[in-house]
Amino acid sequence: MEAHQAWQDIYHTAKAWTQEAGQRLRDTLGGTLNVEYKTSAADLVTQKDHEIEEFFIEHIRHHYPEHAILGEEGLAETIEDPYREIVWVIDPIDGTTNFVHQQANFCISVGIYEQGEPRIGIIYDPIHDEFFHTLKGQGAYFNERKLEPLEKTTMEQSVLGINGLWLTPNRRYDHRKLQSIVRHARGSRSLGSAALELAYVACGRLDGYLTLRLSPWDYAAGLVILNELGARMTTIENEPIDIFTSEQTSIFVAKPGLHEHISDHFLLVDEAPGW
Amino acid sequence: MEAHQAWQDIYHTAKAWTQEAGQRLRDTLGGTLNVEYKTSAADLVTQKDHEIEEFFIEHIRHHYPEHAILGEEGLAETIEDPYREIVWVIDPIDGTTNFVHQQANFCISVGIYEQGEPRIGIIYDPIHDEFFHTLKGQGAYFNERKLEPLEKTTMEQSVLGINGLWLTPNRRYDHRKLQSIVRHARGSRSLGSAALELAYVACGRLDGYLTLRLSPWDYAAGLVILNELGARMTTIENEPIDIFTSEQTSIFVAKPGLHEHISDHFLLVDEAPGW
Repeated sequence: MEAHQAWQDIYHTAKAWTQEAGQRLRDTLGGTLNVEYKTSAADLVTQKDHEIEEFFIEHIRHHYPEHAILGEEGLAETIEDPYREIVWVIDPIDGTTNFVHQQANFCISVGIYEQGEPRIGIIYDPIHDEFFHTLKGQGAYFNERKLEPLEKTTMEQSVLGINGLWLTPNRRYDHRKLQSIVRHARGSRSLGSAALELAYVACGRLDGYLTLRLSPWDYAAGLVILNELGARMTTIENEPIDIFTSEQTSIFVAKPGLHEHISDHFLLVDEAPGW
Repeated sequence: MEAHQAWQDIYHTAKAWTQEAGQRLRDTLGGTLNVEYKTSAADLVTQKDHEIEEFFIEHIRHHYPEHAILGEEGLAETIEDPYREIVWVIDPIDGTTNFVHQQANFCISVGIYEQGEPRIGIIYDPIHDEFFHTLKGQGAYFNERKLEPLEKTTMEQSVLGINGLWLTPNRRYDHRKLQSIVRHARGSRSLGSAALELAYVACGRLDGYLTLRLSPWDYAAGLVILNELGARMTTIENEPIDIFTSEQTSIFVAKPGLHEHISDHFLLVDEAPGW
């Protein structure tokens, strides 16, 4: 099978598995959830998280035994050298607190990288049946609709995704810069699922998204989709993101123009406007 | 017609009109929106806002000519004395920025009061087809499902709705108290539609919601629904809310127990924990 056809095949398969996994999560949400606590009360993980990851692992091992897998629950040991392999980067449930608390506003996130380069991104919100997907070079889709490349926008027109926690004093970043951004934008939103918030930038519901701490599986899929649409995606210090070199990173993604404006006037300055 | 039957009739009719209005908004969102600016770039109002309000006004005047109407676009002049009349308090599109920007996460909010007392509350998210409704004394419903009275919860378990703007220095309230609340909760969310956020407290997606500035039509329906479920709803200073005496008010609603805890330990104190 030639390379092009091989990637079409992986794309098709990964989409089908993600939708099947989403169906399982949807079916679950009448029953009682067996919640356990991981590292803190804010970091819930459910039996479904494990179950969906297992579902992907089994299918990938069977169909693509040469592919490696990176996920929240581990399996980094299957990766020998991400820059020489195909790696699936999976978050079975992004937004576990929402999953338990809201039974909505969570998603499955699947990013596939080849030799470190983004190839496939899939984000699926099974409750609202919103399906975002990209095969690099073939456009990004929201369900069946092809998304337009992201257009320039201004600060005054922009609605930004940012978690309220980062607007309070914290040890990661000067919260006053982020407060200044929120005050100068038209509005801010916080959904509680990073992957979904990246998808919302892709489809224009948000003009940008900014967070101080993400793991690779949180943004692996979003990065592929947003790359395809011409979004600028960097760390908060305007550095490039390499998904396989950092365990956790800040992420700042925005429409063209807006990214530069916020970087130049709010982030890469000694003092943000209106402190 | 006796009083009980009359209210059943109003309830039935108001639900049907709200769903029809929602259908119109859903149908609109393929076309181009004709957006105008009202007082600022953050305060959008669309032709649909006017159109849906007109739709309600015409129907109410025809079917219930003796009822008064209070809405964002005016009509306060139809009210002689809200404490002696039946008043419909209507927000045709709550979350207009979301309506324009996201084509999602907005709602129609209809509250009906008799002699100042809450009787009917209806909140409809037409994109997700989520319909919240109450006739006082008959329970609150989320689509066809009857909602349980709200149960006690703790700060550590709670996910709270609060707009990022209130976590930045502002002239309405000491933002450090609100920052402290966000840091002590499990998480915070911001949706961009107050009425919908109140509905989310009703159905348990949020454990509380706190905002510094709402107009009567923003919370008229939510207050009826949340009353029915046993939520505590006050101003941020723990004062009772009278929808017909204040043009704008702060709103703090939370599950029983949580409301008292946040009031006593974070709001009604000289210094919040962890400043």
